[in-house]
Amino acid sequence: MTLQVTAAADIGDISATSDLTSLIAQALAAVHWADGSSGIRSGDIVVVTSKVVSKSEGRVVACADAAERERIIDSESVRLLARRGSTRIVETHHGLVLAAAGVDESNTDSGTVVLLPLDPDESARRIRAGLLTALGEQLAVVITDTMGRAWRLGVTDQAIGAAGLRTIEDLRGTRDHTGRLIERTIIATADQVAGAAALVGAKDSRRPVSVVRGLDSLVIPEDGPGASALIRPADEDMFRYGTID
Amino acid sequence: MTLQVTAAADIGDISATSDLTSLIAQALAAVHWADGSSGIRSGDIVVVTSKVVSKSEGRVVACADAAERERIIDSESVRLLARRGSTRIVETHHGLVLAAAGVDESNTDSGTVVLLPLDPDESARRIRAGLLTALGEQLAVVITDTMGRAWRLGVTDQAIGAAGLRTIEDLRGTRDHTGRLIERTIIATADQVAGAAALVGAKDSRRPVSVVRGLDSLVIPEDGPGASALIRPADEDMFRYGTID
Repeated sequence: MTLQVTAAADIGDISATSDLTSLIAQALAAVHWADGSSGIRSGDIVVVTSKVVSKSEGRVVACADAAERERIIDSESVRLLARRGSTRIVETHHGLVLAAAGVDESNTDSGTVVLLPLDPDESARRIRAGLLTALGEQLAVVITDTMGRAWRLGVTDQAIGAAGLRTIEDLRGTRDHTGRLIERTIIATADQVAGAAALVGAKDSRRPVSVVRGLDSLVIPEDGPGASALIRPADEDMFRYGTID
Repeated sequence: MTLQVTAAADIGDISATSDLTSLIAQALAAVHWADGSSGIRSGDIVVVTSKVVSKSEGRVVACADAAERERIIDSESVRLLARRGSTRIVETHHGLVLAAAGVDESNTDSGTVVLLPLDPDESARRIRAGLLTALGEQLAVVITDTMGRAWRLGVTDQAIGAAGLRTIEDLRGTRDHTGRLIERTIIATADQVAGAAALVGAKDSRRPVSVVRGLDSLVIPEDGPGASALIRPADEDMFRYGTID
């Protein structure tokens, strides 16, 4: 089985007046594949970085200075988990744990910051429905954000919104090839899809749309559990509290 | 740009008498690609699950019962980070943080457990050199293990060993498309490669070898920094200590 991941062409600068779903649909119609074919088909997974989703939803706010940025982070946070110097790891109202509540000053106009979408699963559902109307194909949609990790250096892209995808694969109760019962394994499939897509997206964020082909068995007709299913409940999390200097 | 990820055929049961590199080389010669071609070429990244590497290195030990398993985990650990019930999150002698020190009782003979390779970067270097000899191609090699994460549900594959690959991409000092200086971003590329490969590997571990094609710019002639470059130094880690019940 071969998986293919390809980046769609640049969709231009996005703002609250952009019709993001139409722009994505146009870009998808022109993607190219290793076998020489082009366009998308049912069973493909469309991966979109959260930045363009946020911009299309008007989640860009003025931010004059570092003090204002700290207040904006406060307003996006429900809990402080850890702090070192000017870096704060917080829990957002979505339940996501990440630096600066995802408040991002890169690739946006000077004097502004971009906030995460208010409800990324809802954003994914809306884009998925729009793509079905525009293209007539049953696709999955994943919205990603770039996050650090405990213990490991560097950032990876993770799924913060999803629709039409089995975002987790629960292997509990199945058996390994020796016949041994698998007791605990749940695979964070949507996060691995997000990371695969990040490998083809340009680092300057000018290619915010990618497509993953070959995981048709994970693409489902209903909206499904969304990426919120990937958030570990706080009471099951052994690392909910970090160090505060 | 299109990335392709494909799983090689089953390489059979691996033990300390197996010639793992030869078996991988044979399997690689037969992989199929979306464009109808087969085999591997310089610039491809070969991803191997740690379980078969461990088995080929004799890292399988007898384990009669739960008490013995706990003693084995102790011997693989340098530090306890968190504990809940029978689950222990520890730091291994490699600096990896994961449940049960990676001591794994799945897909191994009853009454045995599999330990992680002693030095996974060295394992990757050895396999890479062997593949160059066997196949005449300059490949990268990544050795993966399946790990949980703080805050997020489910496991993903991560790179624990690597050779011939830029395992991290350090964007610090570069500029985003608005010209803004990027101050902090380091991308954990090898972990995203590991996750992409996991999407095509069969869940029963009978397809432990995958190939990622299309990231030639990350494949380097020297062994490079290895996957140990992905371990966050303890003194920079805000979540080194969890909760102990």
